[in-house]
Amino acid sequence: MTGVFNHPWLSGLFADGEIAALWSAEAQLAHMIAFEAAWSRHGHLGGLWSEAEGAAAASAIAAVSLAPEELRDGTAQDGVCVPALVRLLKERTGQAAIHKGATSQDVIDTATVLSLVRSLDLIDQRLVTLGDALSDLEARFGDRPLMGRTRMQAAVPITVADRLQTWRLPLETHRDRLAQLRPRVALVQIGGAAGDRAALGVGADAMCTAIAQELGLGTTPRAWHAMRDGLAETASTLSLITGTLGKMGQDICLMAQQGIDAITLAGGGGSSAMPHKQNPVQAELLVTLARFNAVQLSGMHQALIHEQERSGAAWSLEWMLLPQMVQATGRALGGASDLTAQITSLGARDRLS
Amino acid sequence: MTGVFNHPWLSGLFADGEIAALWSAEAQLAHMIAFEAAWSRHGHLGGLWSEAEGAAAASAIAAVSLAPEELRDGTAQDGVCVPALVRLLKERTGQAAIHKGATSQDVIDTATVLSLVRSLDLIDQRLVTLGDALSDLEARFGDRPLMGRTRMQAAVPITVADRLQTWRLPLETHRDRLAQLRPRVALVQIGGAAGDRAALGVGADAMCTAIAQELGLGTTPRAWHAMRDGLAETASTLSLITGTLGKMGQDICLMAQQGIDAITLAGGGGSSAMPHKQNPVQAELLVTLARFNAVQLSGMHQALIHEQERSGAAWSLEWMLLPQMVQATGRALGGASDLTAQITSLGARDRLS
Amino acid sequence: MTGVFNHPWLSGLFADGEIAALWSAEAQLAHMIAFEAAWSRHGHLGGLWSEAEGAAAASAIAAVSLAPEELRDGTAQDGVCVPALVRLLKERTGQAAIHKGATSQDVIDTATVLSLVRSLDLIDQRLVTLGDALSDLEARFGDRPLMGRTRMQAAVPITVADRLQTWRLPLETHRDRLAQLRPRVALVQIGGAAGDRAALGVGADAMCTAIAQELGLGTTPRAWHAMRDGLAETASTLSLITGTLGKMGQDICLMAQQGIDAITLAGGGGSSAMPHKQNPVQAELLVTLARFNAVQLSGMHQALIHEQERSGAAWSLEWMLLPQMVQATGRALGGASDLTAQITSLGARDRLS
Amino acid sequence: MTGVFNHPWLSGLFADGEIAALWSAEAQLAHMIAFEAAWSRHGHLGGLWSEAEGAAAASAIAAVSLAPEELRDGTAQDGVCVPALVRLLKERTGQAAIHKGATSQDVIDTATVLSLVRSLDLIDQRLVTLGDALSDLEARFGDRPLMGRTRMQAAVPITVADRLQTWRLPLETHRDRLAQLRPRVALVQIGGAAGDRAALGVGADAMCTAIAQELGLGTTPRAWHAMRDGLAETASTLSLITGTLGKMGQDICLMAQQGIDAITLAGGGGSSAMPHKQNPVQAELLVTLARFNAVQLSGMHQALIHEQERSGAAWSLEWMLLPQMVQATGRALGGASDLTAQITSLGARDRLS
Repeated sequence: MTGVFNHPWLSGLFADGEIAALWSAEAQLAHMIAFEAAWSRHGHLGGLWSEAEGAAAASAIAAVSLAPEELRDGTAQDGVCVPALVRLLKERTGQAAIHKGATSQDVIDTATVLSLVRSLDLIDQRLVTLGDALSDLEARFGDRPLMGRTRMQAAVPITVADRLQTWRLPLETHRDRLAQLRPRVALVQIGGAAGDRAALGVGADAMCTAIAQELGLGTTPRAWHAMRDGLAETASTLSLITGTLGKMGQDICLMAQQGIDAITLAGGGGSSAMPHKQNPVQAELLVTLARFNAVQLSGMHQALIHEQERSGAAWSLEWMLLPQMVQATGRALGGASDLTAQITSLGARDRLS
Repeated sequence: MTGVFNHPWLSGLFADGEIAALWSAEAQLAHMIAFEAAWSRHGHLGGLWSEAEGAAAASAIAAVSLAPEELRDGTAQDGVCVPALVRLLKERTGQAAIHKGATSQDVIDTATVLSLVRSLDLIDQRLVTLGDALSDLEARFGDRPLMGRTRMQAAVPITVADRLQTWRLPLETHRDRLAQLRPRVALVQIGGAAGDRAALGVGADAMCTAIAQELGLGTTPRAWHAMRDGLAETASTLSLITGTLGKMGQDICLMAQQGIDAITLAGGGGSSAMPHKQNPVQAELLVTLARFNAVQLSGMHQALIHEQERSGAAWSLEWMLLPQMVQATGRALGGASDLTAQITSLGARDRLS
Repeated sequence: MTGVFNHPWLSGLFADGEIAALWSAEAQLAHMIAFEAAWSRHGHLGGLWSEAEGAAAASAIAAVSLAPEELRDGTAQDGVCVPALVRLLKERTGQAAIHKGATSQDVIDTATVLSLVRSLDLIDQRLVTLGDALSDLEARFGDRPLMGRTRMQAAVPITVADRLQTWRLPLETHRDRLAQLRPRVALVQIGGAAGDRAALGVGADAMCTAIAQELGLGTTPRAWHAMRDGLAETASTLSLITGTLGKMGQDICLMAQQGIDAITLAGGGGSSAMPHKQNPVQAELLVTLARFNAVQLSGMHQALIHEQERSGAAWSLEWMLLPQMVQATGRALGGASDLTAQITSLGARDRLS
Repeated sequence: MTGVFNHPWLSGLFADGEIAALWSAEAQLAHMIAFEAAWSRHGHLGGLWSEAEGAAAASAIAAVSLAPEELRDGTAQDGVCVPALVRLLKERTGQAAIHKGATSQDVIDTATVLSLVRSLDLIDQRLVTLGDALSDLEARFGDRPLMGRTRMQAAVPITVADRLQTWRLPLETHRDRLAQLRPRVALVQIGGAAGDRAALGVGADAMCTAIAQELGLGTTPRAWHAMRDGLAETASTLSLITGTLGKMGQDICLMAQQGIDAITLAGGGGSSAMPHKQNPVQAELLVTLARFNAVQLSGMHQALIHEQERSGAAWSLEWMLLPQMVQATGRALGGASDLTAQITSLGARDRLS
C-alpha cells in the first residue's frame, strides 16, 4: 500500500472521500463503459454499423457487469486496459458493434476527462465554500490588529483582514481560471488508431458531436491524442490552487507559534510524546500538498513532449501524476475549510504597541 | 559566466536578442526608474507631497543617469537593489519627493511585470508567425503520406497535415491563454511597507490608477505582494508553449532519422568528428528548452508558498527562475520558426505501402 | 483508487509484487510494532522501567493483533498514526512499559527504514540479475554491427556491445553507490520528544545500540529527526537507477522502430485498434518510471528544508514521495529484466554499408 | 542579463567570486584548450600522428590566443562550440595534428569536469570552514537553553547545541559523499565519434591514461558519453548540501522572529520602507538556493535519459542546469559562513520556564 490516498491509515490524513469516489476504479470503469456504449450507439453516424446494431450493443454494454480486477492481466500484457475491456465486452454481450474505429486512447482519455470535469465542479464548489468561510472570519476578526511581517520580520501593524484577503482573493481568480480552461479540457477524445478519425468517414463530425453530447463534453475538430496542453493546464491550475492554500497553511503555522500567538485553533493534532501539544496538522498538510503538487506539475509538463501520434511513455506518466494532483487539491480544499472552522481567534485583541 | 542566455558562445545557441533586450539590466533599471518617476508624479494623490514637488522629482528622476553596477553593493547588503536605488536617486536629484510610502517589492515587481508584458506581446506575435509558417508547410506538404506512429511503432498511414496540426493547433490555444491571463498579471504592484497602502490614505485608489495608467498596466484593489498566482500562471503558460514546441522538436528529430526519412532539413549543425552529419540542432534545442521550462515551473509553483506579507526566500526564487523561463520561451519560438524555414520536405513522395 | 501501484488494473503494468509487499500496510505496521517491542524490551537501559516490565510488555506487544484500518481515525486527528497505535497497544496488552520516552517520528522513521533496507537489498539483487542478463545479451549479440547514432542521426557503425555496455556498466556503479549510502540510511531513529534523547539519561547510547541491533540497523550519536540527507540521498540513488533504465528503455523504443529495426522483441503489447502491432510497452514503461522518479526526487530534496526539531510539512511530503519512488524503482528493474528476456535479436546480421 | 549569477546587481546577492571564476567562459575555454593540447601531445599513442607532430601542435595550441566570443557563431550553427574551436586552432597554429579521433563531447565534457573538480575542492574546503564556524558557535552558545519546536509548536526545552548539530553533522557526511563520488565523476571523457574510441586502435588505453594524467583526472575503460550518472550524482550531492544549508537558513529565519528571539544577527539587510528593520537576508538566501537546487536537480535526472550514443537534447539540458547548481552551492556555503559570523547570540540567557 504505497499511495497515501488509499492507505489504510494515511488516508485518514490525506484522502478526501468525495474526490476519491470520482477517481475510484469503479468510476473509471463506468466512464470507460459509458464511452463504449456511446460509441456503439452513435457508430452508425460514422458508418461503422447500422443504428439498430449499435443500439443493441449499447444496451448490452450498459448491462455488462465487470470487476476492475478483470482488466489487470490485460493491462500487464498490453500496457493499456482497453484491449481486455473490449474483449470482455464482446464476450459478455455477444455483440459485434463495439469499439471498431476507436482506439485505447479514446476510451481512457475520455474516461479521465469525465473524472476530471466532475472533480473541477467539486473543486469550484469548494472554492466558494472556502471563500465564504474566509469572508466569515474576516467579518468576525478582520478589524483586529496583526503585526505585519515581511521577510520573516515584524514590519508594521496591519489588520487581520489584510492577511485574510491574501488567502481569499486568489480563490476567486482560481474560479475564473477554472471557467476559462474548462472548454479546453472538458472534451471527448476521439481519434481512432492514428488520431485522424479515418474509420469514421464523412460522418465523423456528427458522430463525435453525438458522443460528446451524450457524455456531457465538448468536441474538437480533431483528436487531441498528442496535444496534451489541456491536461497540463489543468494540472497547473490545480497547483495554483494548492499553492494559495499552502500559503494560507504556512501563515497559520507561523501564527500559531508560541511567542507569536496570532491565531487560536481548536482541535489540533495530539502528540505521542507531549500530550500538552496542539499541532496545527491541517495547516501543515496544506503546505505539504502545495509542495507535492508543485513537484508533480513538473512531470505533467514533461509529458507535453508527446512524440508522434501517441506516446506510451508520456501518456503513462500522466496516469501516475494527474489523479494524485486532483486528490491532493480536493484534500487541500477540504482541509482548508476544516481549518477555518477550527479558528477561534485571529490577531490581537488590543492595539499593537 | 554561468547562464547560457548570456554566455559568450552558448548564447549563440540559447539566446534570443529581442527577448534578451527586454530583460537586460538596462531595461530592468529603466523600468524601476519609470516606476519611481510615476510614484513621484502621482504621489500627491496619496497625500505624500505636493503636485509640484512630485512633478519636479519625477522630471529629475527621469533625467538621472545610473549604471546597473552601482546597485550591486547595496543588493549584496540589503538583498534587494531598491534601498540603493532610492539613495542614489535622492542624491543625484536632490529631491525629497521620492519613494516615500512605497516599498522595494512595489518597484521590483512592477519592473518585472513591465518586462513580462512586453515579452508576452513578443511571444504572442511569434505564436502567430510560427502558426503561419506551419500553415504554409501544411499547404505545401500536407497531403503527402506519412506513416502514423503510435507508441514508437508504425501504426497506419496518415498525412503530413495530420502531424503538422498537432504542432500548430495548440499555438492558437496558447494565444487564448495569453489573452486570458494578461489582466491577471499585467498589474502594477503597489502596497507599501506591509502591503496595505496605509501611507496613501483615501487617495490610494486614485494614485494607484494614475500610476498604472502611466505605466500601461492594470491596477488591483490591493497589493499582490503575497499573492503570486499571476506570475506562476504566466510561468505555466510559458511552459505549455515550450511543451508544444518540444513535441514538435521531438517529432522532427524522430522524422530526421536515417531509416525513417520523413523530413529533410537544410542547414543542420556540423560535427567536429563527422563532417558528413547534419544534426537537427534546432529540433533538439526545442526538446531541451521544453524540459528546462518544465523543470523551472516546479520552482515557480513552490514560490507560491509566500509566507506572511512578503517572503524574501520565495520572492528571490522567482528572480532566479522566471526570467530564464521567458528567455527559454522566446528562444524556442524563434528556433521553431527557424526550423520550419529549414524544412525542405516532409512526408513521403509516394503512397506508403 | 488513485495510485497506479495499488490500482486494480493499472497495477498490472506498474506494480511489482515483491517490492509492494515490503511496503504493504501490514509490513509497515509490523515494523512499527517491532520498534515498539524493542523499545519496551531495552527501555530498562534508559531507565524507563525495569527489565522485567519491559520484557513483559515486549512479549505482549509482539502478540497483539491489530488491523491497519484501526489507525485511520487517529491519523486523521493527529496527523500521525502513532498516538493511536500506542493507545491500542496499551489497551490490548494492559502493559504500561510502552513507548515512554519515544516519539512518533522514532517509530515511523524506523519503520520506513526497515522497509527501505529490505528494498535496497532487493534492488541490489536485481541489479545483479539485470547485469547478468545484459552480459548474456552481449555474449550472444555483442559482436553484431549496429549503426551508432548521435544527436538522433546515424554517425558511424559500432557494435551491439558498445550500446549494451552503456546500459550495463552503470548498474555496477549503482551497486557501489548503494553499498556506500547504506550506513548513512540504515539507521534506527531514536530521539524522543525533541530529538535529544533526554528521557533516556546516561543509558541512551546503550539503549539505542540494543534496539538498533535487534532491528538489524545501525545507530547514530543523535537522532536524525531533522537531518534528512540520508533519505534524500537514497531517493537520488533510486532515481539514478531508474535513469539508467530509462536510457535503456528509450534506446530500445528507438531501436524497435520500423525503418531502424535494430532489435526484435517477442511479446510486446497489443493494441485495441491495430492487432498487427507489437508495442514495446516494457521499454516505454522504463522511460515513464525514470521521468517519474526524476520528478519525485525534486520533492524529496525540497523536504530537506526540515525546520526546527521536526517539520510536519516536510516529513509528510516524504511519505507521499519516497514509497512511490521505491515502487517505481523495483518495477523498473523487474521490467528491465523482463525486457531483456523478450529480446530475440539485436543489431544487424550483416556488416553495415 | 537574465542569470542572477552574472547580473550587474543581483550578482551582489547571488554570486560567489571564487566559484564564478572556475566557471567563467575564460576558464571553460582554457579547459577545452588544455584538452586539445593534451590530445595532440598524446595522440601518437593512439597512432593519430607522430610524437613530434603532436608535440609541436600541443605547444602551438597552448600559445593560441582566443576570445570566447569567437566561438559564438559556430555554436549557433553547430549546437556545440567545438567545430569552431578546432577550426580556429588549426588556422592559428597551422598544425594538423589536432582533434582528429576526438569528438565535441570529449572536449566539452572534459572541460566541464575540470571546472567541476575544482569546484568540488572548493566546496569541500568550505564545508570544513563552515563546520568549524558552527563548532565555534556551539562552544560559545551550545549550553544555552532553547525551546525545542516540533511541527512549528513549542515542545520541550533543548539546548542550542542540539539545534546547531542538526546544521553541522550533515556537513561531515557531505564530505564523505564528495570523497566517494569523486572517482565516479573526476574522469576524462574520451570516446570519439560514436564513443568507442575506434580511431585510437590498440593504443587507446595508453593514450587515454596519458591525457587523464596530464589533466589530473581519472580514466575509464570506455567513454561515458551516454552514461551521465556521475554528473547526476554530483548534482544530487550539491542539492543535499544546499538542502542542509536551507534547513539552517529556515531555522535562523524562524529564530530571528520578534516574539521568538532566539538569535541575534548583526548586519541584516535594510529596507527601503522601514529603516528599523534588520532582514535576515543571508538566511533567506539559503532557503532560496536550497529550493533552487532541488528544482534543478529534477532536470539533471531527466537528462539521464540520454538516448543512443549522444543526445543533443539531454546534453544541452545539463549545460543549462549544472553550472547554476554549482554556483548556487558555492554561494550558499559562502553565505552560510557569512551568516555564522553575523550571529552574536543564540538561545536564551536564562532557563526556559
